Amino acid sequence: MKLLFANPNTSEQITERIRTVAEAAAAPGTKIVAVTAKAGVQYIATRAEAVIGATSALELLAEHSSGCDAAVIAAFGDPGLGGARELTTIPVIGLAEAGLMAAQMLGRRYSIVSFSSKLGPWYRECVEYHGLLGRLVSIRLLETPFNDVTAVQSEKESLLVGLCEAAAGDGADVVVLAGAPLAGLAQKIADRLSIPVIDCVHAAVHLAEALARMKVKLKRIPPKVPVNLSPALTNFFRGDGST
Amino acid sequence: MKLLFANPNTSEQITERIRTVAEAAAAPGTKIVAVTAKAGVQYIATRAEAVIGATSALELLAEHSSGCDAAVIAAFGDPGLGGARELTTIPVIGLAEAGLMAAQMLGRRYSIVSFSSKLGPWYRECVEYHGLLGRLVSIRLLETPFNDVTAVQSEKESLLVGLCEAAAGDGADVVVLAGAPLAGLAQKIADRLSIPVIDCVHAAVHLAEALARMKVKLKRIPPKVPVNLSPALTNFFRGDGST
Amino acid sequence: MKLLFANPNTSEQITERIRTVAEAAAAPGTKIVAVTAKAGVQYIATRAEAVIGATSALELLAEHSSGCDAAVIAAFGDPGLGGARELTTIPVIGLAEAGLMAAQMLGRRYSIVSFSSKLGPWYRECVEYHGLLGRLVSIRLLETPFNDVTAVQSEKESLLVGLCEAAAGDGADVVVLAGAPLAGLAQKIADRLSIPVIDCVHAAVHLAEALARMKVKLKRIPPKVPVNLSPALTNFFRGDGST
Amino acid sequence: MKLLFANPNTSEQITERIRTVAEAAAAPGTKIVAVTAKAGVQYIATRAEAVIGATSALELLAEHSSGCDAAVIAAFGDPGLGGARELTTIPVIGLAEAGLMAAQMLGRRYSIVSFSSKLGPWYRECVEYHGLLGRLVSIRLLETPFNDVTAVQSEKESLLVGLCEAAAGDGADVVVLAGAPLAGLAQKIADRLSIPVIDCVHAAVHLAEALARMKVKLKRIPPKVPVNLSPALTNFFRGDGST
Amino acid sequence: MKLLFANPNTSEQITERIRTVAEAAAAPGTKIVAVTAKAGVQYIATRAEAVIGATSALELLAEHSSGCDAAVIAAFGDPGLGGARELTTIPVIGLAEAGLMAAQMLGRRYSIVSFSSKLGPWYRECVEYHGLLGRLVSIRLLETPFNDVTAVQSEKESLLVGLCEAAAGDGADVVVLAGAPLAGLAQKIADRLSIPVIDCVHAAVHLAEALARMKVKLKRIPPKVPVNLSPALTNFFRGDGST
Amino acid sequence: MKLLFANPNTSEQITERIRTVAEAAAAPGTKIVAVTAKAGVQYIATRAEAVIGATSALELLAEHSSGCDAAVIAAFGDPGLGGARELTTIPVIGLAEAGLMAAQMLGRRYSIVSFSSKLGPWYRECVEYHGLLGRLVSIRLLETPFNDVTAVQSEKESLLVGLCEAAAGDGADVVVLAGAPLAGLAQKIADRLSIPVIDCVHAAVHLAEALARMKVKLKRIPPKVPVNLSPALTNFFRGDGST
Repeated sequence: MKLLFANPNTSEQITERIRTVAEAAAAPGTKIVAVTAKAGVQYIATRAEAVIGATSALELLAEHSSGCDAAVIAAFGDPGLGGARELTTIPVIGLAEAGLMAAQMLGRRYSIVSFSSKLGPWYRECVEYHGLLGRLVSIRLLETPFNDVTAVQSEKESLLVGLCEAAAGDGADVVVLAGAPLAGLAQKIADRLSIPVIDCVHAAVHLAEALARMKVKLKRIPPKVPVNLSPALTNFFRGDGST
Repeated sequence: MKLLFANPNTSEQITERIRTVAEAAAAPGTKIVAVTAKAGVQYIATRAEAVIGATSALELLAEHSSGCDAAVIAAFGDPGLGGARELTTIPVIGLAEAGLMAAQMLGRRYSIVSFSSKLGPWYRECVEYHGLLGRLVSIRLLETPFNDVTAVQSEKESLLVGLCEAAAGDGADVVVLAGAPLAGLAQKIADRLSIPVIDCVHAAVHLAEALARMKVKLKRIPPKVPVNLSPALTNFFRGDGST
Repeated sequence: MKLLFANPNTSEQITERIRTVAEAAAAPGTKIVAVTAKAGVQYIATRAEAVIGATSALELLAEHSSGCDAAVIAAFGDPGLGGARELTTIPVIGLAEAGLMAAQMLGRRYSIVSFSSKLGPWYRECVEYHGLLGRLVSIRLLETPFNDVTAVQSEKESLLVGLCEAAAGDGADVVVLAGAPLAGLAQKIADRLSIPVIDCVHAAVHLAEALARMKVKLKRIPPKVPVNLSPALTNFFRGDGST
Repeated sequence: MKLLFANPNTSEQITERIRTVAEAAAAPGTKIVAVTAKAGVQYIATRAEAVIGATSALELLAEHSSGCDAAVIAAFGDPGLGGARELTTIPVIGLAEAGLMAAQMLGRRYSIVSFSSKLGPWYRECVEYHGLLGRLVSIRLLETPFNDVTAVQSEKESLLVGLCEAAAGDGADVVVLAGAPLAGLAQKIADRLSIPVIDCVHAAVHLAEALARMKVKLKRIPPKVPVNLSPALTNFFRGDGST
Repeated sequence: MKLLFANPNTSEQITERIRTVAEAAAAPGTKIVAVTAKAGVQYIATRAEAVIGATSALELLAEHSSGCDAAVIAAFGDPGLGGARELTTIPVIGLAEAGLMAAQMLGRRYSIVSFSSKLGPWYRECVEYHGLLGRLVSIRLLETPFNDVTAVQSEKESLLVGLCEAAAGDGADVVVLAGAPLAGLAQKIADRLSIPVIDCVHAAVHLAEALARMKVKLKRIPPKVPVNLSPALTNFFRGDGST
Repeated sequence: MKLLFANPNTSEQITERIRTVAEAAAAPGTKIVAVTAKAGVQYIATRAEAVIGATSALELLAEHSSGCDAAVIAAFGDPGLGGARELTTIPVIGLAEAGLMAAQMLGRRYSIVSFSSKLGPWYRECVEYHGLLGRLVSIRLLETPFNDVTAVQSEKESLLVGLCEAAAGDGADVVVLAGAPLAGLAQKIADRLSIPVIDCVHAAVHLAEALARMKVKLKRIPPKVPVNLSPALTNFFRGDGST
């Protein structure tokens, strides 16, 4: 099986982290293809940046999804997810969606923990988009600045553990570590927590594998001819060589 | 990997259908253990019957979950799911939950199709319990009686296809075939439908495998000593030899 | 009039408290029948325990509801309520339902106060089940352990008064004292509170009387023959000698 | 016990019907005081008319609630209910509230049936105000005109029966006959219906009795001195001789 | 253009403040007519007072709306708004509605700040009535008493600034200063705030102008003949000389 | 005043229609700048197309918003709205938002009417995004194909009138004609309808004027340096010469 992880951020380092964690988690025989947006920002934190990220996500799927069995939009917030699902016949899930779905299946009420208070509005909007607000308890975010987003999980490890416990105190019975920069952290801290903790990349790998194995016959929207898009994206909308 | 399918109905024939469909769907190396409730009704259709089914589901988990990697409460409506999840440290999902979660990850708004109008209130309540009402479009149910619940999927195949298309007309972009008696039907009719169709047993197999592979450290509630329950159930609450 | 209070907990002492408070509250001529679950736990605090309690509640109704004018499932959380209502033609209400309904009719937005933080998730789920989350302000629970559940209301009286006032500060204009172990406390503390306080057993007695007096012709679901249930429960499902 | 039925409509005939039905339903020893608005419209059907009705309801309570044990705002839609509850220390319920609460306690999902399509928006708004929209299935209203609102229940009896059955088909398991002009009809048609039917006046009598018997210590808002209101209403706001 | 500001409070001083702020904000050529309720309370703070205010609002519209292009119910809480809109064919908006709508169009999630904790329940109910609760973050209210409602904005200016910043901390990205007594304050404090702040009177002026310019053909409900209302209100219901 | 209408579709003809209708509606002295997306599709009908449209909308604002007093994203569905609002300090509203807000201020419950059933899912998602689902009654769409989107309003005029009346039958008291291709139709058909009808371009012109006149001090998110975006968009994110 081949899974595409399309990182709509422009940070290659974050793509590498996703790839490393995904490969370690994947079933034997699952190949991980991890690709990075060519345009946009290092790390999407706002709705404006997510607009750009959504187009980047479609670009990446247009270029790389052929031959893949499922795809993951590999940024919490899932930019472009609704559109991506309309253009291809392989399953596409979002990193946030994967984490939230796992939380719903492993617990009853969940919290989200992440590394920057700037992410709050965008993350909440993402939960709302998925229709899952009813079981969200709280979003707990680091208030203090960090030095390097690609190393924030080790720099702030103990504070993040504290936020997870605060989420438990809020009434959550499961917590989602949100954002690709936190990929791989859940396993390290699980023993220190009173509630289960979910790694979104792990969730994405396994849920994407599961959806691919279900072999549901998906449909795409009818072909349409756009103007002035990249060749790959134009073909994607035209349904040429569509996955 | 070993997956437990705990059928809270008393019908062995439905258990056999679940087993057959689950074994055909499972990944190589996944063993399916399918067990049947000893007490209750042939096929749960109401809240009252689900009360009994919930206790049966816990009984079955108490007796058979040891050594399993994940468990499925194998009746749409998921009786006892919330309680089951509190008593064990392996992932437990419901058949309805599996179908609904797959629908949310493969489409945007979904409908449920099933074989008896008597199931409507109980099925709707189940969607509400999962907090997923916001994306439910409609529940479409056969109005005419059938001869044999274990054969209803072939007896009523063309009417069920019609209900799926009616769901598409309601605005659903994916449809869930609900209820263990419909296990295996989705594949047969997928080509005749304008929207994707989900088999709950397929969804349950693959999502249970996925959750087991995620290896999230789950917690159970503290041990408690009940009175006058079966030995297995007593041990389950006491946390003896707990999974 | 004869009212059945079916305590799905196994604690006879709690049944006695319910009986005492209910008899003191009942209208002249109302007879209280208070019965105790034979199987389960001393005091239901989790969803798993509520699964067992739900079956116990149906057992108790099956055995004792004949000749009664209305029944109360006498534990906050109302285990088995939906099923119970399907099996009988006398009104059945839950202890939580009674308290919440009284709160909605006597105030506008309400809080719940109870004696153990373990009860939080189960109590919230109960409010959600009743569709009354929109007017719930907060659930305030004692954080410190108590010695004896049957004496917790006197042991923690001043802390419970404090929680009620905290609820007022949250914006509640009425507070529900939740759980059979707190039956009878509301009257004692009412004068010390700035908002009205509701005793669930009082509410249950008077609302059950009211529903019985309304003489609405209720329907039960069609008879069905279960297997391996107790004789009383079997008859209850079969509709034999049904109330 | 003395119950005040404050009819915020100006129709004495409707007040008489309410009185007759309420007296027949009331417990032995319960006295019904039924009074009629002096200003406003014959029958409230819109939000504009409900504005006037709300002030009339407060006027009637100001004049007549002294010495009563509970009060009912005796028009479906409950004009002035929130305000009335703030000004007095006896329980006040609305006719709609009583019917809806009874429906929630006797069934799971309910419909409303009434006699004029003009009432739809106002009735729906009332359900929303009470926070009970989640369990409302449908509002079914007569489309054809009637001759006389005070005789509409006999004139349109068979059509109203049809609407109740249509509500059952919508998925309701209990139906509320809405509006004082339909008081007394439920008993006549109950045997012809497949689901239970609720008479709002019956519900109001018995729930008002229940709330009065609960003897919850209610609070009123602090006194305030209004200008240019009637003497009774002025006193009501000033808290003079307040109930 | 002529805009009617109908103040349902009896305080002429508050009407003067509204007039002053509205005239300063209005487009060239817009004439402000500001009128005061003859009956009721100085400042509406509760549901009971809003009942009276609603009738006053209709009275004021009945007397003064003729010849106006749009009307504003000039008290946060919008008493009588739904009814007012049914009786006239000019646009009518509420002061709260104007502020909330502006907040929704200028930000994503908003808080309300006002000067008295007594206003909380009534203000929240108003947001709920408008169906806008989903984007409300918090209601922040002064806890300490003030000397004079007409001067509260200067007396408590720094505390109000603090509440606005607290709202920002709650996650609001825009804040509404609620209540006619705060009219004009937003401009004074905007530079000290980290999030945008909305003046309800400004919003009402500009949105009323906008709605009037849209020239949508509005409808009123059919004429009806009420009894014992003032001549102006009687004519308003009868549709005589209706705007 | 200068208002920017940014059409995220690539159809110049639709931009011309918007310009014509907007200029006719605008206040004296208001200048309309109408610009067209350079990339994307002729007419956005799906989520995938809206992803591209969202980036186009930001592009257009980046290039043309300087010197404007407010901007409108001139396609129903409002692609990019949340992001646009973060990047500029002038008010930005969406065409759908304008229509929905006007509907909420002129009526109580509204329906949407448009010209293609393909638009349904995307339009509903837009209402949900704005948090306005609670007052939406129905979305009524033409089922039959049309020849030319730029002439669909005249080609299908009588069918569209029929849909508006169907919406009234659904319970709507106001209807929004959705989509730029229907701009200008509302005035033509208003006299034939039993409920008020809203033109989104009219609403957008007047609400944008209103928001600009309110002069609320808006904030933008902190500057950020993206890579590989167009120069205008790069500057927009960097906050250079930002409006």
